[in-house]
Amino acid sequence: MLTASYLGNNEIAIRTAEPQPPEPGQVQVEVAYAGICGTDLHVLHGEMDARVTPPAILGHEMSGVVAALGEGVTGWGVGDHVTVVPLTWDGACPACRTGHEHVCHHLRVSGVDSPGALQRLWNVRADQLVALPPDLRLDHGALVEPTAVAVHDVRRAELAAGDRAVVLGGGPIGVLIAAVVQHDGADVVIVEIDPQRRAYVEAMGFAVLDPTVVDLPSWVADWTGGAGADVVFEVSGAAAAVLAATDLVKVRGTVVVVAIHAEPRPVDLHRVFLRELRMVGARVYERRDFERAVELLTAGVVPADGLITHIAPLTATVDAFAALQSGQQMKVLIDLAQD
Amino acid sequence: MLTASYLGNNEIAIRTAEPQPPEPGQVQVEVAYAGICGTDLHVLHGEMDARVTPPAILGHEMSGVVAALGEGVTGWGVGDHVTVVPLTWDGACPACRTGHEHVCHHLRVSGVDSPGALQRLWNVRADQLVALPPDLRLDHGALVEPTAVAVHDVRRAELAAGDRAVVLGGGPIGVLIAAVVQHDGADVVIVEIDPQRRAYVEAMGFAVLDPTVVDLPSWVADWTGGAGADVVFEVSGAAAAVLAATDLVKVRGTVVVVAIHAEPRPVDLHRVFLRELRMVGARVYERRDFERAVELLTAGVVPADGLITHIAPLTATVDAFAALQSGQQMKVLIDLAQD
Repeated sequence: MLTASYLGNNEIAIRTAEPQPPEPGQVQVEVAYAGICGTDLHVLHGEMDARVTPPAILGHEMSGVVAALGEGVTGWGVGDHVTVVPLTWDGACPACRTGHEHVCHHLRVSGVDSPGALQRLWNVRADQLVALPPDLRLDHGALVEPTAVAVHDVRRAELAAGDRAVVLGGGPIGVLIAAVVQHDGADVVIVEIDPQRRAYVEAMGFAVLDPTVVDLPSWVADWTGGAGADVVFEVSGAAAAVLAATDLVKVRGTVVVVAIHAEPRPVDLHRVFLRELRMVGARVYERRDFERAVELLTAGVVPADGLITHIAPLTATVDAFAALQSGQQMKVLIDLAQD
Repeated sequence: MLTASYLGNNEIAIRTAEPQPPEPGQVQVEVAYAGICGTDLHVLHGEMDARVTPPAILGHEMSGVVAALGEGVTGWGVGDHVTVVPLTWDGACPACRTGHEHVCHHLRVSGVDSPGALQRLWNVRADQLVALPPDLRLDHGALVEPTAVAVHDVRRAELAAGDRAVVLGGGPIGVLIAAVVQHDGADVVIVEIDPQRRAYVEAMGFAVLDPTVVDLPSWVADWTGGAGADVVFEVSGAAAAVLAATDLVKVRGTVVVVAIHAEPRPVDLHRVFLRELRMVGARVYERRDFERAVELLTAGVVPADGLITHIAPLTATVDAFAALQSGQQMKVLIDLAQD
């Protein structure tokens, strides 16, 4: 079978490998589609070399079909449609012992810290599987992982129906957050600086603002009767957006830190104080977030077809990374069946 | 009577004024003691000139005795011991309409936006009064306002008995927070860079660390079995403390922003994300915080005698501000009966 591996130094190689049978407790999954995302770009650029040991098979967003069961595995059958929660934890650290395994002090992510989904036959622990209904298209099923991120982000926001939320950043995660927010009965606007991304976001039916044209504090004040937004999601990773977030949120409102900010960012702590704001971090997801993501995708709540703008065979993985890097795509999928 | 007024340009004047009878709905309070604090220093330095119109009678922490009742006031009698919640709100803004009057968009603070307690006979609205029990010493009663700040800060932390909390900054508010935290059944350590303040804090029986000597992350890790603190209170106003706060707190832990940071501060948002931290602002207090502060002072929970390090007559207000400015005092009180 073919695999796509990070070799270090911005290099990805397509190589052949001999499929291995699943070990006891494992399930072999025939991968259908795998998504690539910003984390994969960070790996490619060497920014995660402390964790990633080349050659490293990438890929942590996927859908597939059970191909074989390892010894002792029950509850799954060949042909079942599945996705994989790509997290493993030590079960012993202070985070795990208080029920927060998904932010384990020694969290390992499949496709980063261990081999990932960019291989046709992938062996994973049976307890990492989440069932997909047979009527959910497998390309859509590859969106379960990023949708689970969005579900988790909205859970952290403690949003209520009728709230007004601002999403700073109109990439795939920003759009997925907006979709979940709307489904939960709240109003949402997305702020995105890139015209191509704004066009995608608009085509999916979301309200979107260009921050270079619109005065955001005035716009949000008008929208909210002078109160400010109930929740602001910071999904852009930009320093300016961090300062905007505290400006846009109401007294006792919430800022959710979704994006990865590699360096400390100036935060308007005086505004945090004056308005008694709440700023919360949101990282990956819990199993219940995956299960809700499956439900939302199956129900058609997520604009999956609008989000998937590029599908490539595994042999074109290098080009697919370049397309993602351009910032002009939304979700980029690798179709493993084409290899 | 004598009054102490801010004249602008770092100047305070002791002047005479004719006492005015209370207007309808007002109570005239004979002020016993008034505390001065960091906010008063900000006023003196001109940093709040946008709000303060000289000549402005300062003072928003106080105790006193009811001297006269304005027309229509019921429920109070001459001779009652009282303190004053020095806040008024518009009742109409989005914060007020959602029950957060204490962070009203147009909040006014007595002693800042309107005349304060540095006058022997002070007229206030009857609904601003909070009763003090006759057996609470009036010098201790002047600590109700800063104690209410601490009660509010701990309320915002959502602290639980058995938690471990770090207080960054060992001034009066830091010590009061530590006292409330301990009373609520949690363990606490104070971090303070100034040797004189550390000596005061230690003399009041609190554990205190010198951050120039102790490696705080290691110390807190040892103290908490590797987990990190449940809550960190940022009371110092220092940029370095803001970065330390996110380093010291556990997964899903809370950082309470108590201090005023006049400019945006670098915050380690990656740590906020990785550990799913919660950062909350805490500003002034609600009436219930004042009432609990009275209870705690009356019960002897607050180390009032250790905190009050300087008492001066109103005629020595200029010297009292200089003593506070030196950073070598804890709580500085003006004794209005001495004028």
